[in-house]
Amino acid sequence: MDKQFVSQIADIETDFPQWYTDVVLKTKLVDYGPVKGTMVIRPYGYAVWENIQRELDARFKAAGVENAYFPLLIPMSFMTKEAEHVEGFAPEVAVVTHAGGAKLEEPLAVRPTSETIIGHMFGKWIESWRDLPLRQNQWCNVMRWEKTTRPFLRTSEFLWQEGHSVYATGEEAEAETLRMLALYREFAENVLCMPVLTGRKTEKEKFAGAVATYGMEAMMHDGKSLQSGTTHYMGQNFAKAFNIQYTGKDGALEYGYTMSYGVSTRLIGALIMTHGDSRGLVLPPPVAPVQVVIVPIAQKKAGVAEACAALSEELKACGVRAKVDDSDNSPGWKFNEWEMKGVPLRVELGPRDIENGKLTVFRRDTCEKGEICRENAAARIKELLAEIGAALYRKAETRMKERIVQAGSLEELLAGVDGGNFVRAGWCGERACEDRVKEFAQATARVLDENHTGKTCVCCGRPAKHTVYFARAY
Amino acid sequence: MDKQFVSQIADIETDFPQWYTDVVLKTKLVDYGPVKGTMVIRPYGYAVWENIQRELDARFKAAGVENAYFPLLIPMSFMTKEAEHVEGFAPEVAVVTHAGGAKLEEPLAVRPTSETIIGHMFGKWIESWRDLPLRQNQWCNVMRWEKTTRPFLRTSEFLWQEGHSVYATGEEAEAETLRMLALYREFAENVLCMPVLTGRKTEKEKFAGAVATYGMEAMMHDGKSLQSGTTHYMGQNFAKAFNIQYTGKDGALEYGYTMSYGVSTRLIGALIMTHGDSRGLVLPPPVAPVQVVIVPIAQKKAGVAEACAALSEELKACGVRAKVDDSDNSPGWKFNEWEMKGVPLRVELGPRDIENGKLTVFRRDTCEKGEICRENAAARIKELLAEIGAALYRKAETRMKERIVQAGSLEELLAGVDGGNFVRAGWCGERACEDRVKEFAQATARVLDENHTGKTCVCCGRPAKHTVYFARAY
Repeated sequence: MDKQFVSQIADIETDFPQWYTDVVLKTKLVDYGPVKGTMVIRPYGYAVWENIQRELDARFKAAGVENAYFPLLIPMSFMTKEAEHVEGFAPEVAVVTHAGGAKLEEPLAVRPTSETIIGHMFGKWIESWRDLPLRQNQWCNVMRWEKTTRPFLRTSEFLWQEGHSVYATGEEAEAETLRMLALYREFAENVLCMPVLTGRKTEKEKFAGAVATYGMEAMMHDGKSLQSGTTHYMGQNFAKAFNIQYTGKDGALEYGYTMSYGVSTRLIGALIMTHGDSRGLVLPPPVAPVQVVIVPIAQKKAGVAEACAALSEELKACGVRAKVDDSDNSPGWKFNEWEMKGVPLRVELGPRDIENGKLTVFRRDTCEKGEICRENAAARIKELLAEIGAALYRKAETRMKERIVQAGSLEELLAGVDGGNFVRAGWCGERACEDRVKEFAQATARVLDENHTGKTCVCCGRPAKHTVYFARAY
Repeated sequence: MDKQFVSQIADIETDFPQWYTDVVLKTKLVDYGPVKGTMVIRPYGYAVWENIQRELDARFKAAGVENAYFPLLIPMSFMTKEAEHVEGFAPEVAVVTHAGGAKLEEPLAVRPTSETIIGHMFGKWIESWRDLPLRQNQWCNVMRWEKTTRPFLRTSEFLWQEGHSVYATGEEAEAETLRMLALYREFAENVLCMPVLTGRKTEKEKFAGAVATYGMEAMMHDGKSLQSGTTHYMGQNFAKAFNIQYTGKDGALEYGYTMSYGVSTRLIGALIMTHGDSRGLVLPPPVAPVQVVIVPIAQKKAGVAEACAALSEELKACGVRAKVDDSDNSPGWKFNEWEMKGVPLRVELGPRDIENGKLTVFRRDTCEKGEICRENAAARIKELLAEIGAALYRKAETRMKERIVQAGSLEELLAGVDGGNFVRAGWCGERACEDRVKEFAQATARVLDENHTGKTCVCCGRPAKHTVYFARAY
């Protein structure tokens, strides 16, 4: 048994990277795999992922998207069919060269993403306009060989979903690209309780092979940005590379227009770094594996164990993920552990509570104790969980709003990101200026602001074509 | 649009292998992937897998097993730590030798199964008897390079779940091995509506590295057997190879005892070949993606579309997976298509049905039409779905019972399997006799019968130590 105490977590304000590592390991969300850069998602972390999957999958199905599964291994020749795509992904690909005791005729890529193989199959399946749109999604593992890795944030292998659609027209495919971005945003806000900025990415930051990439960016505790989801409009790039053609109503053969979208286990890193505090994790109720932990006080006293079990059953019957911690540890030790593990609500239940018909509740987000009536406790607890979710969102939103600053010069931009802010600034649209910002301030263009108000480029002073959110990013 | 008719399916009695290929491709359960031996699981097939997953996952969770996720890539050195394990799996392994643009220092195996990497992590996590039992499961893809492949039955990559547990004692680990076998059996019977034989495997047929393997075998339409799930008791083999040790209550350091269990997308092949008939698929209601298809008759007539939609909503509200086929195809074409796709129940709804307050229903299992009242239709349809499931089970059970024959000699055994039977026979326990049966009759020992009644070995005539179910197998 490894007993871990809060004192073992690094200070969140002075050493945020170490705080993150301490928290993900000590709460048993994750562990390092034996191959460098890989992670093991432990049951507590995987349960968060299952909750994310369930919520997102229901949204995809309601939107009419179907799930499927495409092979892990992609012929290397596929990767090279779209010129920008291979340039972007080849350096990160893991390659199977031998199988079944022999060298393969053609090396096979372990999928870093599946546009190519799905494009190939879509090209085979689609015949006429009646087959469109074709909209499929898969939940799977992907592999991108990364030099610097951190659990959830950047690992050689990660879990994700990737949705791929083909439409007859570019307008429809672009509309789906924005619709899926909006779906992700609604999910981030309501399920992860995480405010995000959404918008188009610059050419430099777009997906390899896309016409346009849109991103969802969240502000972490330290003011850095985490790209939390992307949607891509491909135009006819992949349709032409993989012969995705359909016969139109007029009988003519046309290329389709494709788009894709994905979020990954990175979202777990996002919610840790958005909501966590000095005591450890703070999990949003919609994805918390345990929403309510019930800690018996004087648990050997008559009636306490039974009262805890009865409350737990009552909560479960109302759809609340409740757990009684009836281990031999002291209540104080349990309080520490479940606080570190980020359980949204703790209920303390002892002989005095039973006598008074009350329950002591502790909100993880505010770290405040209160009392509720035992009668109607389930209904009140469900309200409290909703309040906690809303409060987490408001807190993160307030931080993000307070930490978006304007800059009119590179020096102001540098001061802004040094201070842990997102910096909103004008940009002329030239790659050279974007590169200069990176060099000068170690900040990148996260997304373009639809609401373009920048007058001059923060770098060169020429007229601004776009207003950009710049930030340092994970 | 590809319009497919029943006439395109090969005859199930005279060419069962071609029937299988036709059915899985034409009903769009699956397609071939671009890399030899790989498959694409299309939405209709993946929806069956999702239903299997949901049912099994709920059973695992109720049994107290937690889900996790372990890395895809396993250092080759891990594979060699358990001598029998590497011998069994090395010939089938796909190997990553290059990644990130460089040759790797150590080649990495794409997991064919995860005993080694999970053993390594369990060894790291377990400290004392308080950490036991440790019971985790993962849903993932695995890869085994196979020479001869068929969709679902044997493919280079497949999806599965693999559960792994560590116990303090061998008795507990063995008990879990049998408990999980019983869980699989209950699942096969109640969810797949598929009768199975369960029992211990011979030494020859056991998992590479196990002390004992138990299997679940189902009889296919042609009388051949399909191994549909296995559970393995490992003793201390993997515990010693991966240092899975715990401090006992007495303070002494002990090795744990491990076990594992798995079922895969092969189950989809099993249910196709168990229930299918000359018209195509017959899907058991618990896993059918569409349980009830509603076909409008004279769908342009006033009120028909509305009546179909209302019935569909009513069924969905009762938890029935219903779908209205309001495409432009003729009713006859729709009947054919949904029969081939194996939808358990068809409802026909036209102006006359509306007028009479009746619905015409067609049961896919019996291919019989009947009438039910529109009033209380949802309740009656739920009953019918349950009846269909029970009838499918009984039909398959009757076939299996009728096709289990006894044999006292190799000639009788050969005649038995030639006739599409499972053959129950005595066996001396010697590998030489098991090999001779394979050579003489192309049949293998599927499972041992607990109820040992064989007097002499079917091969050598010496006293029998076991009674075995022999069969030809997929």
